Amino acid sequence: MTTLSLDIATRLATAGLEAADAMTVPMNIAIVDAGGHLLHFTRHQDALLGSIDLAQRKAKTAILFRMPTATLGQISRPDGPIYGIEWSNGGLVSFGGGLPITDTEGNVVGAVGVSGGTADQDVEIAQACLAAL
Amino acid sequence: MTTLSLDIATRLATAGLEAADAMTVPMNIAIVDAGGHLLHFTRHQDALLGSIDLAQRKAKTAILFRMPTATLGQISRPDGPIYGIEWSNGGLVSFGGGLPITDTEGNVVGAVGVSGGTADQDVEIAQACLAAL
Amino acid sequence: MTTLSLDIATRLATAGLEAADAMTVPMNIAIVDAGGHLLHFTRHQDALLGSIDLAQRKAKTAILFRMPTATLGQISRPDGPIYGIEWSNGGLVSFGGGLPITDTEGNVVGAVGVSGGTADQDVEIAQACLAAL
Amino acid sequence: MTTLSLDIATRLATAGLEAADAMTVPMNIAIVDAGGHLLHFTRHQDALLGSIDLAQRKAKTAILFRMPTATLGQISRPDGPIYGIEWSNGGLVSFGGGLPITDTEGNVVGAVGVSGGTADQDVEIAQACLAAL
Repeated sequence: MTTLSLDIATRLATAGLEAADAMTVPMNIAIVDAGGHLLHFTRHQDALLGSIDLAQRKAKTAILFRMPTATLGQISRPDGPIYGIEWSNGGLVSFGGGLPITDTEGNVVGAVGVSGGTADQDVEIAQACLAAL
Repeated sequence: MTTLSLDIATRLATAGLEAADAMTVPMNIAIVDAGGHLLHFTRHQDALLGSIDLAQRKAKTAILFRMPTATLGQISRPDGPIYGIEWSNGGLVSFGGGLPITDTEGNVVGAVGVSGGTADQDVEIAQACLAAL
Repeated sequence: MTTLSLDIATRLATAGLEAADAMTVPMNIAIVDAGGHLLHFTRHQDALLGSIDLAQRKAKTAILFRMPTATLGQISRPDGPIYGIEWSNGGLVSFGGGLPITDTEGNVVGAVGVSGGTADQDVEIAQACLAAL
Repeated sequence: MTTLSLDIATRLATAGLEAADAMTVPMNIAIVDAGGHLLHFTRHQDALLGSIDLAQRKAKTAILFRMPTATLGQISRPDGPIYGIEWSNGGLVSFGGGLPITDTEGNVVGAVGVSGGTADQDVEIAQACLAAL
């Protein structure tokens, strides 16, 4: 299994910031390692302050359950099978913007969490991060 | 009233792990005593990290209200009589996977919480634990 | 680097429980993986309830700083260079009973935390766990 | 008053990482803005996991009281005038490694927090960050 290095994390975050610049939406980008520990965090200075926590929480959620946060959200709604899972693990985020990072062998080696725009915009930036792998 | 011993807890957890092996889903299994205190916890090393907390929280929820977590969940939805109960007690889990452990006299002596698969799979493993009583 | 498996964790915990039986002190034994996530927990049913948290917190402290908790405690006293470090990371424990688990190549792959007796007794049981590696 | 920009924060963190490379000690480096909100965080992948929190907490402490964390620590010991201040603000760190960032007019515009080595090493890396201003 590949370990997520600082170099890779920085490259992903930089790609995300550039995509956010092109979108002209100030963003927060967090990257965690396979154990859920913060590896890299960066943001535009005028990004929403409440999104600093959201970005990190999305990355945490994506690594803890090895799935995109939006996928978790599809089954955690009031009529879903895991309604209320957000109360666990010190607080999860179950809307878009968190994506697992997978190595070439298919192992989940970390996750990225993006917050600052709409959930759709956050997902787009998170995908831009992964495209830089 | 019977007290849940380490021997019984270990037997229940081992039965659960074996059932999870047969199901080929890595699982987390937590057992709490009548006071809600963790007595035994074990997991497959590749189980979902987010389920470590969920398993313990399910066991806690089941002992705190002396009912299966899925039963609590049926009345805690937005249109139910105890909507939002998950906010109490430091965070509850109200979907399947937590079951009270009852002695031969009908006393609730502890609870088991399982997490790692779908809620249905978690319930099946929790039942496998109780079958080893 | 070796990964701490459930089999190894169970063997270590069992060795610790047996040593605690010989000592006739009921003990709590927690084992965490390299990322600090709980892998195995077990205790004598009459162990001190307050030690359930202490055992887990000692294991967490030992992996977070890759040193025995007693070593950390030697430098975190009022006249030491890192006085007050216990306030970080959601609460650390800086007296004896937490030991890192190292593989044959010298990598820290997890940690064990023991609580239930005096700090000296806890350290003795933690060492008994490691002796079963 | 100057605002701490992402460019400046990145420059400071990069300078700190290079100094840590020269010291051959893996480090965690956190930078917060004038409001104490995380602006940038980065670390060597093999840095101590417990220092992720410490680095952020040192930066937070330095901005909250507009002084180096080591200065705060000199007056927060058991015989000092503000003994126990670490309990406030969700947990402070009062040993070396956190430094305020001051602009050319003398305004405190943010803070840097470094953790990973001894307190003296952490201070040295924090000073290397500030030297890149």
